[in-house]
Amino acid sequence: MIQSVAIIGLGLLGGSIGLAIKANAPGIVTTGYDRDPETRAAAEKRGLVGTVCSNAGDAVAMADLVILCVPVGAMEAAARDIAGALSDHAIISDVGSSKQSVAEALAKALPGRTIIPAHPVAGTEQSGPEAGFASLFTNRWCILTPADDADPAALESLGEFWTRLGANVEIMDAEHHDLVLAVTSHIPHLIAFTIVGTASDLEEVTRSEVIKYSAGGFRDFTRIAASDPVMWRDVFLSNKSAVLEMLGRFSEDLTAMQRAIRSGDGDALHELFSRTRAIRRQVIQEGQDDDRPDFGRKDHS
Amino acid sequence: MIQSVAIIGLGLLGGSIGLAIKANAPGIVTTGYDRDPETRAAAEKRGLVGTVCSNAGDAVAMADLVILCVPVGAMEAAARDIAGALSDHAIISDVGSSKQSVAEALAKALPGRTIIPAHPVAGTEQSGPEAGFASLFTNRWCILTPADDADPAALESLGEFWTRLGANVEIMDAEHHDLVLAVTSHIPHLIAFTIVGTASDLEEVTRSEVIKYSAGGFRDFTRIAASDPVMWRDVFLSNKSAVLEMLGRFSEDLTAMQRAIRSGDGDALHELFSRTRAIRRQVIQEGQDDDRPDFGRKDHS
Repeated sequence: MIQSVAIIGLGLLGGSIGLAIKANAPGIVTTGYDRDPETRAAAEKRGLVGTVCSNAGDAVAMADLVILCVPVGAMEAAARDIAGALSDHAIISDVGSSKQSVAEALAKALPGRTIIPAHPVAGTEQSGPEAGFASLFTNRWCILTPADDADPAALESLGEFWTRLGANVEIMDAEHHDLVLAVTSHIPHLIAFTIVGTASDLEEVTRSEVIKYSAGGFRDFTRIAASDPVMWRDVFLSNKSAVLEMLGRFSEDLTAMQRAIRSGDGDALHELFSRTRAIRRQVIQEGQDDDRPDFGRKDHS
Repeated sequence: MIQSVAIIGLGLLGGSIGLAIKANAPGIVTTGYDRDPETRAAAEKRGLVGTVCSNAGDAVAMADLVILCVPVGAMEAAARDIAGALSDHAIISDVGSSKQSVAEALAKALPGRTIIPAHPVAGTEQSGPEAGFASLFTNRWCILTPADDADPAALESLGEFWTRLGANVEIMDAEHHDLVLAVTSHIPHLIAFTIVGTASDLEEVTRSEVIKYSAGGFRDFTRIAASDPVMWRDVFLSNKSAVLEMLGRFSEDLTAMQRAIRSGDGDALHELFSRTRAIRRQVIQEGQDDDRPDFGRKDHS
């Protein structure tokens, strides 16, 4: 039973975990640390955790569960930073978007420790200590990727913890996780970053025109493309092979669409466009999105 | 001064125009027609226009302004259908997403008539007579693309009409419009349709996994990819050259990102990802999107 949680990194994810604990599991004691003093001050002010500590060791010393909420590329350093201060029974977890590389980094930095990597599939384009909110994980999936020899009791405790925060818990092999998320998250982000970059580099169309007429579809891409640059750089570098594989598939399909447009093959276009509507319906049915037009961007009657 | 408007095609756009007139310019008499009897019945029931007519000729006979709200590929046929019934002073306009091809189609079907093509840059992924709402055009841009020899008085009347519906009006050359919209709307849609198709075709990742973990970014693409298949097929076929040109630029940029990931060039990734955040800020500042995280998909404190 987890009674105290230390959160290392108090941005969108770390802050939301703190607030979700306060809202859903107020009996759990929370401590937190961020290496940025301004983030620590903001976290203190918003009450993201019970105690904001001025070093990572103090934050983790009494914790049953330590969650590393730092960019994937910073996991190993963050883990080394706490290695000497952890209590013997502590479970170490994280929220990183790629899991094979994190598992390796944590195993290297914390040999012999109880490590269970995790990935709550939830977020917004905002980042930093002001961005978190208590309901971020409600009805979202949290994927745990334990190693084959992971401690079953620790796995169960971590699953219970995420369930208390409102998430649905799934257990998956780290390699499969990285492939699934490459499709459902990493490639969509890469595409969004790229098209927003393409649009801003055009000479024939001004930046102002791109912004003004963004309601035609582009604005949805700008939202995703506003996500944290460091976090996403690390995701692509750490999940390289799955991302490149999926990117290859996407590029092939895009080339086929290009050919259909060039040759005027309306049937091929119509066939694809009809098929994709069905996917949308399933996303709504599964409760992973809002079915109001424009997600209620504008209230309308 | 426009006192009566006929709307041909009573789907999302046509229906929203009818409702926006009722809300913002109740003195204007509205008539409407749709070739689908079920759509006509639904339009009657929702009161999308004052009178739903059972043929297009009746609908346009008394109208000062006729707006064709049909897929771009159906414009010419819809225009031929009303050619004999138009009053002499009627202004003919439309809401199509590509403008050079529509201008040609209307000029061909309605020689000697007062034609001013238009494109309100607004919409949702919904379609049909149940999808429209009165505030769809509020603070959205409506682009008019008059020919060089267009009647200035008619242009002014049409601009005033769209302003009364809540839109901001811009005048643009049809060729430039088609290039701008290729970037801000057509390519984003093509990419979204394609990636949703790619994801649903994978063998290694199940459809159910794609849906479950869509909150990682993919769900935004499913929204756009749920847009009307016929409308979008026609857009790509009618704006072929601008779409292929912009698709080429995007593909080059995506290849550069692919290379950066393969070679582990984190700086190149970080540079692009930082630049795209600024674009998002401008979209929000210009009032073209909502700055709540996830557009208020979930209410949160």
